[in-house]
Amino acid sequence: MNTRDKNGRVSFRWFDYIIQALIILSLISFALETLPDLSPQYKDWLRVFEVGTVIIFTIEYFLRIWISRPRGSYVVSFFGIVDLVAILPFYISSGIDLRSIRIFRLLRLFRLLKFARYSSAMQRYHRAFMIAREELILFGFTALIMFYLSSVGIYYFENEAQPETFASVFHSFWWAVATLTTVGYGDIYPVTVGGKVFTFFILMVGLGFVAVPTGLFASALSSAREEIKEEKG
Amino acid sequence: MNTRDKNGRVSFRWFDYIIQALIILSLISFALETLPDLSPQYKDWLRVFEVGTVIIFTIEYFLRIWISRPRGSYVVSFFGIVDLVAILPFYISSGIDLRSIRIFRLLRLFRLLKFARYSSAMQRYHRAFMIAREELILFGFTALIMFYLSSVGIYYFENEAQPETFASVFHSFWWAVATLTTVGYGDIYPVTVGGKVFTFFILMVGLGFVAVPTGLFASALSSAREEIKEEKG
Amino acid sequence: MNTRDKNGRVSFRWFDYIIQALIILSLISFALETLPDLSPQYKDWLRVFEVGTVIIFTIEYFLRIWISRPRGSYVVSFFGIVDLVAILPFYISSGIDLRSIRIFRLLRLFRLLKFARYSSAMQRYHRAFMIAREELILFGFTALIMFYLSSVGIYYFENEAQPETFASVFHSFWWAVATLTTVGYGDIYPVTVGGKVFTFFILMVGLGFVAVPTGLFASALSSAREEIKEEKG
Amino acid sequence: MNTRDKNGRVSFRWFDYIIQALIILSLISFALETLPDLSPQYKDWLRVFEVGTVIIFTIEYFLRIWISRPRGSYVVSFFGIVDLVAILPFYISSGIDLRSIRIFRLLRLFRLLKFARYSSAMQRYHRAFMIAREELILFGFTALIMFYLSSVGIYYFENEAQPETFASVFHSFWWAVATLTTVGYGDIYPVTVGGKVFTFFILMVGLGFVAVPTGLFASALSSAREEIKEEKG
Repeated sequence: MNTRDKNGRVSFRWFDYIIQALIILSLISFALETLPDLSPQYKDWLRVFEVGTVIIFTIEYFLRIWISRPRGSYVVSFFGIVDLVAILPFYISSGIDLRSIRIFRLLRLFRLLKFARYSSAMQRYHRAFMIAREELILFGFTALIMFYLSSVGIYYFENEAQPETFASVFHSFWWAVATLTTVGYGDIYPVTVGGKVFTFFILMVGLGFVAVPTGLFASALSSAREEIKEEKG
Repeated sequence: MNTRDKNGRVSFRWFDYIIQALIILSLISFALETLPDLSPQYKDWLRVFEVGTVIIFTIEYFLRIWISRPRGSYVVSFFGIVDLVAILPFYISSGIDLRSIRIFRLLRLFRLLKFARYSSAMQRYHRAFMIAREELILFGFTALIMFYLSSVGIYYFENEAQPETFASVFHSFWWAVATLTTVGYGDIYPVTVGGKVFTFFILMVGLGFVAVPTGLFASALSSAREEIKEEKG
Repeated sequence: MNTRDKNGRVSFRWFDYIIQALIILSLISFALETLPDLSPQYKDWLRVFEVGTVIIFTIEYFLRIWISRPRGSYVVSFFGIVDLVAILPFYISSGIDLRSIRIFRLLRLFRLLKFARYSSAMQRYHRAFMIAREELILFGFTALIMFYLSSVGIYYFENEAQPETFASVFHSFWWAVATLTTVGYGDIYPVTVGGKVFTFFILMVGLGFVAVPTGLFASALSSAREEIKEEKG
Repeated sequence: MNTRDKNGRVSFRWFDYIIQALIILSLISFALETLPDLSPQYKDWLRVFEVGTVIIFTIEYFLRIWISRPRGSYVVSFFGIVDLVAILPFYISSGIDLRSIRIFRLLRLFRLLKFARYSSAMQRYHRAFMIAREELILFGFTALIMFYLSSVGIYYFENEAQPETFASVFHSFWWAVATLTTVGYGDIYPVTVGGKVFTFFILMVGLGFVAVPTGLFASALSSAREEIKEEKG
């Protein structure tokens, strides 16, 4: 029996494995297409492969519609929509100029989401997320406030010294993103004493800032494990 | 009933939602004003919007005073002060040169704090903070000592090789901030062998350093959840 | 008795300590050999030391075979293979051109793995890993999807503005690695407004991303401790 | 009564507060001395302040010896040694050339450790540390192995392409430090495809690497809290 397709009845495991392999190959092929110095010959091969996979995915799509009970339930299910979205851009883009509509091909990446069907550990993640949901929303709110205040603060400290890099609060926001997440690319950083002292205080809070989602998740996952254990035992 | 205003009796939900939307719009408008290449026309529009919101916030302020029981309790409450501080800079700044007093407009950002009224998950955060308070203070102390010792240490290693970037212990402190928080902008880093080895040892401790607030929060939040559960059940 | 060698019967602690010291020294000696401005004299000394250690390790290897009961069990055991791999490259490389085969000497580093034998805390790590295994695999999957989607996304935003640095999805993948792990070298970063906004959203998710393995491990280790306690008590 | 000095009997709180304030001031004064463009007048003032504080600390030291019961116990206690070390460099350095012996003045920073006396939350930290000690040592070992293997690996990938920055395994070690701790200064990073792919895999493990001490501490602190609760209740 197929473990993946709740609606289907007569599909086989090996068919699913082949489809999964094709999805991965088509994703790699998509990445290869973006290589700048690709020879026309390779481009043709990649195009042929693309056409081939889309044909297979289309056949797969209609097969799934046909075997689903009640018929049509698959079309409106989550994976039915994902599967459709994964092949539709190909048919829409053909005939029209490829370059302009190319961005829609990004949607093909949703095929990857198919992998999500395969896991049982997902449940614990989901439970942990539900436990921490309110705290997460609150954290998101506080994070946005912090990003805003940091941006405005550093703007006042650095705008005069670096009118190009800290040109507006929006430019400063980019600094806040790179700093509070501790990425620190190095394209934008304070140079004034005031800006540096401000950064120190912002980062002291920011350390705690990064700590919150981690702590939240750790605590929620422990609770989730206990709850599931109690329910089962 | 209004969930937000404990003192008010005759206020309505939709009124609050409009005020909240206006706060967000005025925050965005404030950020837009800082854009360097703004046309005078746009500036005028933003100014008009600013005057409009301040008038509405002022009316809101007096309405809240009027409906609060006992009358005047709102004025001395936390949100009464925040609401006043959010509109006062406008009246103080008008008439005087705008550029010099501009920094006071930062206080308008406190309007954002209004959002804090809306959350129930806050309680768990608060409880977790109370549980970990002593450890947090101790951690803050240790962090300051570590920042100081790191600054002095790297100063001795790097001052001779880079007299400009590591000019004093204060300059080295900026390095300590960027390094121990793992931001690493790249504007200041050790070049001598001694400085690099020192950085290695500092960062080995620093890894644990970043770990402490996270672990603290995770552990405290778990305890907070259990305590609240026991109290309720 | 030797705590390390389950198969051996007549080995002594001090012998093991000498071997461990030799392993560390040979690792340092290996690193020293890579120094660019090494005088020929030093190179000779390092070579002599290398030959000496390999001879001792070879004698040790045959001694271990000889004392293991049932004889030969050591040869097929994990550490038997590691010990062989640690000395084999020396015999294979001698006679053939050293420079080309030099990369095999990397295998000598496996000697370090010998240290792994010494710890009892390993068990708790192992248990925690087993508890979190499914979640870890799922996290790895999600991480790969996220890396892929981030790479493709930033490619569309930045390819036109920076055709050199964001030349293909593969180049963008390098950006995703440096950004989502918050390393942020600064050799590749977005410059367009779209790319920066995209990075903000990616990093907001990325903060949670970094949080997952930490929270997972913290929660799993707590469970592991409880389980071991219950089993023993 | 003085809460700090277990050996003393007739000391007063206000005296301790003044000493603590003096310690902080002398630490700031020490940092100020390193400022490059300090006028000679300021330097004189700082020197006078330094002499003044050392005299007070010396008097304090002898007072503490005098009031300690049994007499002399303070001299051999931890804080007795710290207090002595904090003033001794001043007497040793005077008369000899100041510049060369300047590094010993670093020891004056140990005065800061006095702050450690003041906390009760320390106990929970200590307990958590004891619980996680074995895991921490094992983690330290694994970390060192990982640093070594990463350094050697990247050396083979990058040495040819960047013979200056990745000149030896030791130079590569500096890269490993900046990368695995996610600091990422940007002074050293891979440029070859192999090196970048290697970095990706190293960082995937490295994400877990950073996760371990955090999770360890979170789990240990939760256990410590429970243990202390059980002992008290």
